[in-house]
Amino acid sequence: MQIRVDDLERVTLEVLTQSGYPQEEASVILEVLMYAQLRGNNQGVVKLIGAGMPRDKAAQPISIAKDTKLSALVNGGKNTGMVVLSYATDLAIEKAREHGVGIVGTNSTNTSTGAIGYYASRVAKQGYIGLVFAGSGEFMAMYGSYEPLFGTNPLAYGIPTSGKPIVFDMATAAIARFGIVEAKTAGRAIPEGVAYDAQGNLTTDAAAALGGAIRVFGGYKGAALALLVEVLTHPLVATSPDANGRKTDWGNLVVAIDPELLTDSDIFEQRVSGLVERLKGANKLADVGEILIPGERGDKILEQAEKTGLVDIDDSLWTALQQIVK
Amino acid sequence: MQIRVDDLERVTLEVLTQSGYPQEEASVILEVLMYAQLRGNNQGVVKLIGAGMPRDKAAQPISIAKDTKLSALVNGGKNTGMVVLSYATDLAIEKAREHGVGIVGTNSTNTSTGAIGYYASRVAKQGYIGLVFAGSGEFMAMYGSYEPLFGTNPLAYGIPTSGKPIVFDMATAAIARFGIVEAKTAGRAIPEGVAYDAQGNLTTDAAAALGGAIRVFGGYKGAALALLVEVLTHPLVATSPDANGRKTDWGNLVVAIDPELLTDSDIFEQRVSGLVERLKGANKLADVGEILIPGERGDKILEQAEKTGLVDIDDSLWTALQQIVK
Repeated sequence: MQIRVDDLERVTLEVLTQSGYPQEEASVILEVLMYAQLRGNNQGVVKLIGAGMPRDKAAQPISIAKDTKLSALVNGGKNTGMVVLSYATDLAIEKAREHGVGIVGTNSTNTSTGAIGYYASRVAKQGYIGLVFAGSGEFMAMYGSYEPLFGTNPLAYGIPTSGKPIVFDMATAAIARFGIVEAKTAGRAIPEGVAYDAQGNLTTDAAAALGGAIRVFGGYKGAALALLVEVLTHPLVATSPDANGRKTDWGNLVVAIDPELLTDSDIFEQRVSGLVERLKGANKLADVGEILIPGERGDKILEQAEKTGLVDIDDSLWTALQQIVK
Repeated sequence: MQIRVDDLERVTLEVLTQSGYPQEEASVILEVLMYAQLRGNNQGVVKLIGAGMPRDKAAQPISIAKDTKLSALVNGGKNTGMVVLSYATDLAIEKAREHGVGIVGTNSTNTSTGAIGYYASRVAKQGYIGLVFAGSGEFMAMYGSYEPLFGTNPLAYGIPTSGKPIVFDMATAAIARFGIVEAKTAGRAIPEGVAYDAQGNLTTDAAAALGGAIRVFGGYKGAALALLVEVLTHPLVATSPDANGRKTDWGNLVVAIDPELLTDSDIFEQRVSGLVERLKGANKLADVGEILIPGERGDKILEQAEKTGLVDIDDSLWTALQQIVK
């Protein structure tokens, strides 16, 4: 169904307030959730139903564990991932503005950061190249294995252009964990070849997959990218595994780079826009209507929402949200 | 066949000298080629036969077009890609040593940089995280298109550990361009689904593929990574397209990051080594003998060569090299 964007925002804010978030944190989370929701990305308000995302009662103020001109390590203090990574993103932007590069890591969170394209876009809107990496729990197996050790290990980039930035995020997993959770709730099968059961057999059963492991995307190349994200979001940001190496918290990393370090920023942005035009104007395969630049599908959905003030939402999801605030 | 490593080095150096390289440049190129050859990577001495890699007679001394504390833009002056990227790598390491981060781009080359894992490994051996990106000509199509606009756009990373660094490089293409050239020479078909002919039909004919376009690996995710590499190796490093946007030179980017910016380097390296152990000890799929970490297959081949002093080489390739120096 379609509902008014501002109705959804109002209800979402109410749910967040009920979930224990002070107004400032609730606004940050709202922005991250709506970024996804208005782009048709499944990291949207669906996160609020079921177990939802209650504020951790043990949360402490965010603090800075290490600080240099170019970098910071942020202790998330068990605050929600979205609040902590937003904070880290702003810090990285500040450092890039002053010194050309900002590298900010976070630890001591163990909740979702949502669609990490959001943070990359925030960096790119300031004119910097943004790279964002997000860690999570033991969900995905290394290539050759069926034992979950990796998170789904998404990465995102944002690139400024002379128009809208190019923003892309992707899991290095063959399927998002959330896609499996959704399939289980809906009683649907998951696609073939994306997950193992606990015995290492490929499975299309969502419940078996949740008890097993997700596969990496793209074979050994995807596994290599997953390993890079794992290193950047765990050892590099000093998360705290237990004595057996199991994760007790998740980390994130955001990098902001000023193109001016290497070239004239304006010319850089014009050239990226020129590249986009060239790609979109390239000869299309017979069955392709339009060549889409990374992130463009979501941007088109967003434009529609901005034009009409309406957003698509699953009937039962909208009902569930309204139930929470009743 | 197997030959002595030092025989191969001697002949390779002679070929390079005959190709016009002064001794210093020849040593650099030898190191890059042997890195690949001794790891069973196809970016090795095969590059010296056929058209080979003669030194460009128009080459000018490498110069620095832009320089900041953290970064430099290197004008390659039409020197060979391997020499220019080696220079850039050392510069990035120097800057990382002094300031924590080094970001060095190159332009004004249009020759291969070889196996870019080599440069990433050089960074990682100094204790820094290395990221390397290499641009090239119009060989690969955007997702949805069959018109070659991208290079094969490889990326590499190097991660220090308490033992040997983890080093990985990969093309964002479904097949290396060199793999197609080899297949054509050998009269072999290329694998299904990796390339289009000039009309946009999938083809297994190597000659048709060379006249058409290589596909990206991993569908739209691979395409998004290819776009990132394209931006980092062309607009960001100020290459010089012609009036129609066609490339006249190729660029490269190397980034070195000191883990100390975020955490204790020693603990970081220990934790990465612990992660590797954990991955290698994970439950294996039924048909998997050993879980291999990215780059490990090549390292095992290298170890063998170091132990025996012998290296595998194709008979006809060894004959061809010896012909050149006769």
